[in-house]
Amino acid sequence: MAATDHPFVGELIERHRETLERSLTALGDRDYWSPYPEFPKAYGETGAEDGRAAFEALVGTVFRLPGQPTDGELAGTEVSPYGLELDIAYPRAEAEALLGAARAAAPDWAAAGPIARAAGCLEILARINARSHEFAQAVMHTTGQAYGMAFQAGGPHAQDRGLEAVAYAYAEQTRLPLQASWTKPQGKRDPLRLTKEFIVVPRGTALLIGCNTFPTWNGFPGLFASLATGNPVVVKPHPRAVLPLALTVQIAREVLAEAGFDANLVTLAAERDREGIAKTLAVHPDVRIIDYTGSTEFGDWLEENARQALVYTEKAGVNTVVVDSTDDYRGMLTNLAFALSLYTGQMCTTPQNLLIPRTGIDTDQGGKSYDEVVADLAGAISGLLADDARAAAILGAVVNPAVLQRSAAAASGEYGELALAPRVVESAEFPGATIRTPALVKVEAHKPDDRAVFLSECFGPVFFAVAVDSTADAVDLLRRSVDEQGAMTATGYTTSPEVERQLVQACLDSGVSLSLNLTGGVYPNQTAAFSDLHGTGANPAANCAYTDAAFVANRFRVVEIRRPA
Amino acid sequence: MAATDHPFVGELIERHRETLERSLTALGDRDYWSPYPEFPKAYGETGAEDGRAAFEALVGTVFRLPGQPTDGELAGTEVSPYGLELDIAYPRAEAEALLGAARAAAPDWAAAGPIARAAGCLEILARINARSHEFAQAVMHTTGQAYGMAFQAGGPHAQDRGLEAVAYAYAEQTRLPLQASWTKPQGKRDPLRLTKEFIVVPRGTALLIGCNTFPTWNGFPGLFASLATGNPVVVKPHPRAVLPLALTVQIAREVLAEAGFDANLVTLAAERDREGIAKTLAVHPDVRIIDYTGSTEFGDWLEENARQALVYTEKAGVNTVVVDSTDDYRGMLTNLAFALSLYTGQMCTTPQNLLIPRTGIDTDQGGKSYDEVVADLAGAISGLLADDARAAAILGAVVNPAVLQRSAAAASGEYGELALAPRVVESAEFPGATIRTPALVKVEAHKPDDRAVFLSECFGPVFFAVAVDSTADAVDLLRRSVDEQGAMTATGYTTSPEVERQLVQACLDSGVSLSLNLTGGVYPNQTAAFSDLHGTGANPAANCAYTDAAFVANRFRVVEIRRPA
Repeated sequence: MAATDHPFVGELIERHRETLERSLTALGDRDYWSPYPEFPKAYGETGAEDGRAAFEALVGTVFRLPGQPTDGELAGTEVSPYGLELDIAYPRAEAEALLGAARAAAPDWAAAGPIARAAGCLEILARINARSHEFAQAVMHTTGQAYGMAFQAGGPHAQDRGLEAVAYAYAEQTRLPLQASWTKPQGKRDPLRLTKEFIVVPRGTALLIGCNTFPTWNGFPGLFASLATGNPVVVKPHPRAVLPLALTVQIAREVLAEAGFDANLVTLAAERDREGIAKTLAVHPDVRIIDYTGSTEFGDWLEENARQALVYTEKAGVNTVVVDSTDDYRGMLTNLAFALSLYTGQMCTTPQNLLIPRTGIDTDQGGKSYDEVVADLAGAISGLLADDARAAAILGAVVNPAVLQRSAAAASGEYGELALAPRVVESAEFPGATIRTPALVKVEAHKPDDRAVFLSECFGPVFFAVAVDSTADAVDLLRRSVDEQGAMTATGYTTSPEVERQLVQACLDSGVSLSLNLTGGVYPNQTAAFSDLHGTGANPAANCAYTDAAFVANRFRVVEIRRPA
Repeated sequence: MAATDHPFVGELIERHRETLERSLTALGDRDYWSPYPEFPKAYGETGAEDGRAAFEALVGTVFRLPGQPTDGELAGTEVSPYGLELDIAYPRAEAEALLGAARAAAPDWAAAGPIARAAGCLEILARINARSHEFAQAVMHTTGQAYGMAFQAGGPHAQDRGLEAVAYAYAEQTRLPLQASWTKPQGKRDPLRLTKEFIVVPRGTALLIGCNTFPTWNGFPGLFASLATGNPVVVKPHPRAVLPLALTVQIAREVLAEAGFDANLVTLAAERDREGIAKTLAVHPDVRIIDYTGSTEFGDWLEENARQALVYTEKAGVNTVVVDSTDDYRGMLTNLAFALSLYTGQMCTTPQNLLIPRTGIDTDQGGKSYDEVVADLAGAISGLLADDARAAAILGAVVNPAVLQRSAAAASGEYGELALAPRVVESAEFPGATIRTPALVKVEAHKPDDRAVFLSECFGPVFFAVAVDSTADAVDLLRRSVDEQGAMTATGYTTSPEVERQLVQACLDSGVSLSLNLTGGVYPNQTAAFSDLHGTGANPAANCAYTDAAFVANRFRVVEIRRPA
């Protein structure tokens, strides 16, 4: 029986049709939409407990992917930032074996067509969704995100981004009709008549290279965009964050097999740190699509060397806030304090540099000098994180030693004068966790030594209060910083329409999206699927955005068959 | 006054709104659509005469592009394949000057937005359309196309491809709303509310590198896709086919200036043969998009070296016909004879290899041996081209010495046994024209020496009747040939549903579009805008197709501005 004739495929199409249709509408509306509840309690009375138990049952075991090529096991590489050694062994395989299996699996999936593939992907996402608490544990103990964030960002919000990619993929693949009649008038003669078929052909095997901090949120867009457009996907997780993507691969394989497809459409390429399988895979002629989130260095390497593939990268950047004026000083400080604290500043979207005029700013509480703004922001952060339990729930844990080192360097004054020193937070729940509050460093925009520091990415909980001569200088610096270093986000606070106009123009010119005057419950570092674009692809930080048509439209091609009618 | 406030822009939007809307519908329908009549007489009683007079008035003059940077004139490089020396001098400029002018021109065009840009592009196309007879002369005397073809393919059909690109560009740029409200429920608390703007930002300066044979048809898709998405375009024509694109640039500049924009949004980078300005431009950091049609060698060079740009290439390929069986033997021969003869086989879409089973084929006229099919095809070509005047009207002239050399090599038996020797055609109208009928060469699929010949591109009027062991072997050879050499078209003749299935699968696997059983007035080497895709971008012959979403979606990016509602 051909895979497409499998009764389960028809069932999945019916099961997920409404979600797909609603998602397609949402792509155009850009209003809030998600089928995946973000409240932990929506997953059952015992959901959190069950998820934890499921996670704990994985600890210390051999993770199985039945049917995937393997030549042994890879001893556990994951140690939780909360102290726990995961000690999970993953199947290991040579690149050639995974790619050969993908090649063999490809034809039936290619032939299945867009709606069957969309339904299959939505079933995978539904099953991932049902296990959101288990994913939350896996994300928490590989990334260091606090549980609440690991649940939302690693669970429903990541699923939203996956669904968004599936919806875009479906929309793009169905822009041409399956069949069309063409009738060309010929004056008095009979018209010319042809029948034309337009058939989507996938580009080829895709490679997903996962990151340490957001393995699912940053991984799902590329994974589902490639899979939904008919391409097999080899998933190469970060050696420190294997489990969330291993679970993803396992679930995907189960669904695919149940629907009559070859499970090797999705495989796991686990490796030891710096073993190099990513490079081997990336330049293999079979690999035609690569999605990558991580360092600029390896992203540049991929763009330079993986010439046979389409390469979608999200790399490093320097995110800037321009502080000009506000009619809600308290709201601004509260919003920024949370934005800088959330996950210890370990988001690619977290603002790093706060550009504040040395002449001070106008606020609803009167004029505030540069020093007052800096001190008040430091106070807002300290206040937010005063309680250790609450601090731990916002900060999560430090993801890796390099981040810890930067926090320590800031603490020692290496980056400049401290407006706020980092504090060690003790977690009663996880005594082994490394938790640090942010450091706020005062620097001067016009000092070359300072510029050398704050104008490069300082990933983690180190933030720079940059004294600028004027708001105009701040806008210039924002523009230059995005042009040269790239940025995932830009943020502005101003009550002046003219400054707002200048900020918008600087962001349009340099190609970065702008959050203006956020003082409530939305933060500059958060984007929502189906509404916000994540990144722009228009500056050095990334060459693509989650998710737009350009992110999916080239993952497949169309072959036309025409015949006389 | 900002360019977008110019009253002429509003006028153009109204003038072209209906054409744009009709075009947007056509993209989805894929039925026949064109606003540009393809019958020469539709352009007025004296249209042809006026066009010729306009062309003749250009011969021997200095071509002016007022306002474009220039450091002198470039003496005429164009000699008509019909014998006439065009002796037209074009303005010359350094790459840096053209790119600087483009940079200065860019902001107003970027700010104008999708509808103003679409309207501007449609006005350019409308004015080009009105001068179709003049373009026909320019195309004829630079490419060697016969007048009828130069008129249709170089005129209305090229304009169709340009319009199609504008319509796709508009559709892609308007997939996100200009503004959206986002309201996220928060249980019992007030919902979160944001207002979001989505603003298209062009990628940067585009470079169009034109080809010798179809300067407008192959040039307009990239030119209009880039311009409509907000990017300035530097047009680098082939040194032997400058005039059609110089006229295009001139008209574009006039329209842009009338609408209040900087004419340097579209500039001409004329050069001497092998002067190298294309390379200088292609690797310049300002150039972010390149569209290229031409040799595989230079296309590969661009893909390898122009790393800062998106590179869209159409390169060389080997197009194949599989002849298995037919219920209209006469129709098949007539169709193929015309397809091979049209423009002396100098189309990137012309079939080169005809794979014919050595055991013969079934037809409505009984079984035909390999030798009979070859002889009958040779007879059909000879018959079609028996009359010199008619032959000249179909063949046009040989475009360049390399093509003539291949015809001569075939005539001397260098490629193999001749089933049909090329014939010199004399044109009474153009005694100076070099006109050759096709050579049909008999080769054997299993002979390595023969394979070395027919499995590489032999551009021009040399065709290979390849004896294969069976239809299955023919299908295999088609697949391998597309995989290895690339192809713009594939063609099949069969009455067997099973063979048809195999042919379709081979074309899906190797990524080439297929014309089946064409026996009437549609030929395998012709594609119609708004209905047929030109190329697939799925095999080595091209990395893109005219025109799909992938061809335009990455020529711009979107910047989001969000604010509390």
